[in-house]
Amino acid sequence: MTRRLHLNAFLMENGHHEASWRLPESDPHAGTDVAHWKRMARIAERGKLDSLFLADSPVLWGDIGRRPSGALEPTVLLTALAGATDHIGLIATASTTYNEPYNLARRFASLDHISGGRAGWNIVTTAGLDAAQNFNRTHLPSHRDRYDRAAEFVDVSLRLWDSWADDAVLADKAAGVWGDDDRLYPPAHIGPHFRVAGALNLPRSPQGHPLLVQAGSSENGRGFAARYAEAVFTAQQTLADAQAFYVDLKRRAGAAGRDPDTVKILPGIVPAIAATEREALALEEELDRLIKPEYAKRQLAEQLRVSPDALDLDRELPDGLPDEDEIEGAKSRYTLIVTLARRERLTVRQLIGRLGGGRGHRTFAGTPEQVADAIQHWFDNGAADGFNIMPPVLPRGLADFVDHVVPILQHRGLFRTGYEGTTLRDHYGLTRPANRNAAPVPA
Amino acid sequence: MTRRLHLNAFLMENGHHEASWRLPESDPHAGTDVAHWKRMARIAERGKLDSLFLADSPVLWGDIGRRPSGALEPTVLLTALAGATDHIGLIATASTTYNEPYNLARRFASLDHISGGRAGWNIVTTAGLDAAQNFNRTHLPSHRDRYDRAAEFVDVSLRLWDSWADDAVLADKAAGVWGDDDRLYPPAHIGPHFRVAGALNLPRSPQGHPLLVQAGSSENGRGFAARYAEAVFTAQQTLADAQAFYVDLKRRAGAAGRDPDTVKILPGIVPAIAATEREALALEEELDRLIKPEYAKRQLAEQLRVSPDALDLDRELPDGLPDEDEIEGAKSRYTLIVTLARRERLTVRQLIGRLGGGRGHRTFAGTPEQVADAIQHWFDNGAADGFNIMPPVLPRGLADFVDHVVPILQHRGLFRTGYEGTTLRDHYGLTRPANRNAAPVPA
Ligand SMILES: Cc1cc2nc3c(=O)[nH]c(=O)nc-3n(C[C@H](O)[C@H](O)[C@H](O)COP(=O)(O)O)c2cc1C
Ligand SMILES: Cc1cc2nc3c(=O)[nH]c(=O)nc-3n(C[C@H](O)[C@H](O)[C@H](O)COP(=O)(O)O)c2cc1C
Repeated sequence: MTRRLHLNAFLMENGHHEASWRLPESDPHAGTDVAHWKRMARIAERGKLDSLFLADSPVLWGDIGRRPSGALEPTVLLTALAGATDHIGLIATASTTYNEPYNLARRFASLDHISGGRAGWNIVTTAGLDAAQNFNRTHLPSHRDRYDRAAEFVDVSLRLWDSWADDAVLADKAAGVWGDDDRLYPPAHIGPHFRVAGALNLPRSPQGHPLLVQAGSSENGRGFAARYAEAVFTAQQTLADAQAFYVDLKRRAGAAGRDPDTVKILPGIVPAIAATEREALALEEELDRLIKPEYAKRQLAEQLRVSPDALDLDRELPDGLPDEDEIEGAKSRYTLIVTLARRERLTVRQLIGRLGGGRGHRTFAGTPEQVADAIQHWFDNGAADGFNIMPPVLPRGLADFVDHVVPILQHRGLFRTGYEGTTLRDHYGLTRPANRNAAPVPA
Repeated sequence: MTRRLHLNAFLMENGHHEASWRLPESDPHAGTDVAHWKRMARIAERGKLDSLFLADSPVLWGDIGRRPSGALEPTVLLTALAGATDHIGLIATASTTYNEPYNLARRFASLDHISGGRAGWNIVTTAGLDAAQNFNRTHLPSHRDRYDRAAEFVDVSLRLWDSWADDAVLADKAAGVWGDDDRLYPPAHIGPHFRVAGALNLPRSPQGHPLLVQAGSSENGRGFAARYAEAVFTAQQTLADAQAFYVDLKRRAGAAGRDPDTVKILPGIVPAIAATEREALALEEELDRLIKPEYAKRQLAEQLRVSPDALDLDRELPDGLPDEDEIEGAKSRYTLIVTLARRERLTVRQLIGRLGGGRGHRTFAGTPEQVADAIQHWFDNGAADGFNIMPPVLPRGLADFVDHVVPILQHRGLFRTGYEGTTLRDHYGLTRPANRNAAPVPA
């Protein structure tokens, strides 16, 4: 069988371009309107996409002036989308720094039961002091600490998801015995961050456990992904960078004793699609014109840890910025921004335009054919197992992708024409994990 | 207008009788089958009930042999039910002891947005050492501590729900300003249990905040209910007990400066309904015969803090049981059990039968007319503003209630024949709370 692409729809309120909400077609209240999200989910499913994805952080980003800022909690919102779709995978972001394993493992297992095996978890450690301050902290835990906690969090979650043997429910009405207590495996976990004694209060879910997804690209993040992730989202600007990331992560997965094929790597792409290249570029320009640089400059200054006054819209970034080592927040995002600006010698205004379009992800304007080519080029050249599709304007950009790009990819034999399995893991060509606790059935 | 009853459907897997899952009609896997829950929700909505309710505890109760033990997480499950219904209120239980205010307030606000203003929160402090041990604790926090934390939790949640003025979203596309940062009110809360700095990442929800429900009847629990609860679930065995509770709680609400009418009191009733009284009693007997007393005896011994050997199935409870003061778990439930056993001089076997049927709630077997009479009698005599309907067998018992008892109550003018409002608060005759932060609009 030819190698097949995997496609994920990264949904946002009005689109990934920060000014998309200002277009006449956009509903600025869409973020809290479940009908809007259901519409997008159905479009993605019409395109036979593997999954859809919701980002998240448990904090209100500063400047609600800038763009729509309401964020329905993702496990809850995905449950609503499970009811509006039948096949597509549903990936929610949740933080290991600001949750408890018992509660979160349980919510994902619940979503997996409710959706018939379509749940995925994008595991993040949540950069930023402002989030920490919503959760009893006065300081941001260090990058190292956050990833250590994340590893223990996932270890405990795996034990919780495996705490019922697959055959623990007997349902023996005649004998009056519902379940077999001897087929429970309480974690009895005692570690530096967590103590979790008891079994989950849910039978093992259709997928065994949700698909584990990861999206941090720092040294710690890659180590974590190599150990746990079954799919990886990443922001890569050039083919060479994407190839280097791809080779590195697959190598790390192998070194961690895993089959590198079971870690699917999906760089992001922000496609501006139109019938002609010129129209596609015009759409990008129209959106960029709607950016208000004062908001974006303030955020950029925060990310770079300089004062806004140190940034001049019509000059390049100043010298003397910190090294990635000194950043305790989102390390890889920081490096990506600085590298992009230096490599292309962008002014602050140009940099803001690029980031406003895709927040560091690759932006691409072109015809459906050109977008398909761009995707195939990376896919064929060792840079990607698939893509994270981040339409600049939603829902229109997703419909354009599904109706015009997907058929080309299907025609080239690169993408499915119908769902072949029922679970998210099926879509990604991954098997249901065996329960680590249950003894092998005697022959 | 005549005073109107409020009715809540308390849903469980196969019903409130612990042996209901053993009946031929019951699907023992129903607990994790979202279609089953949607069916029940639609039946409750067909009956024009005010709300439906899910209990919860973040722990696996011992003895999965005894009865179905899977428990989909309630905020997630209710979101699925929101998509399957249009009017009925949706009340989820969640613990203040094992959650963080920012996360939980956000999930309830999300559910309120997604359901169009139908969310309610049953606030519990979660009794039991086994739950504590799933959340990093080696000891159960004391009853007093749990209620102190609960009060601070709700205070912070209210501030989070009010952290956006109702008019904070400007959606001004022309000016490029989405929201007004000056109409945000970050809690900046620093208290003994929580520090929560920032505003919620969601605009204020349709109801302002979810309906606040409470179900603990101890001294601490009543104090808490008087301050915060808009609806109260309670287990009461006799008219006199229910009247005393009703008077006491209304008085406390008044003393706390609230209008007692804004606290709706709903005792539980477990109605076994059949065309004749004899058939209803036969249904109860059939169910009681299916109870396996060894499971129930073990749990009763735990609740009473004695060894199982101290309980003889064919004798009354032993002497020398602890006082409520010494119980750090579910105080009022403990007292209810002991009082019931002593008052009616029940053997352990009889007590187990009574508790197996309704876990301490009033059980009642009769014709639809008799059930309607039982309800009206308490309602007319200062014991209830409505009822928590706990069918022994589900979905059948709920359908029987909706199709045979509700029409009688409607015919007597005691219950609505159609939904008049759109939100859960509308159904309970409560108004949308004003935002405590926002300054009154200048005239
Ligand atoms: C496509 C994509 C989506 C992401 N979504 C989130 C998110 O929803 N929440 C979050 O806190 N971080 C998100 N991140 C950031 C990373 O998960 C990670 O937290 C961040 O890059 C910091 O980790 P690092 O220092 O290892 O790079 C995302 C990254 C990518 C590439
Ligand atoms: C109808 C009803 C439903 C209840 N549901 C829950 C529940 O879902 N979870 C829980 O921990 N306690 C539940 N309780 C128990 C109380 O909320 C409370 O936690 C318990 O009675 C201990 O509090 P107390 O000591 O103040 O009575 C319920 C009680 C009643 C009457």
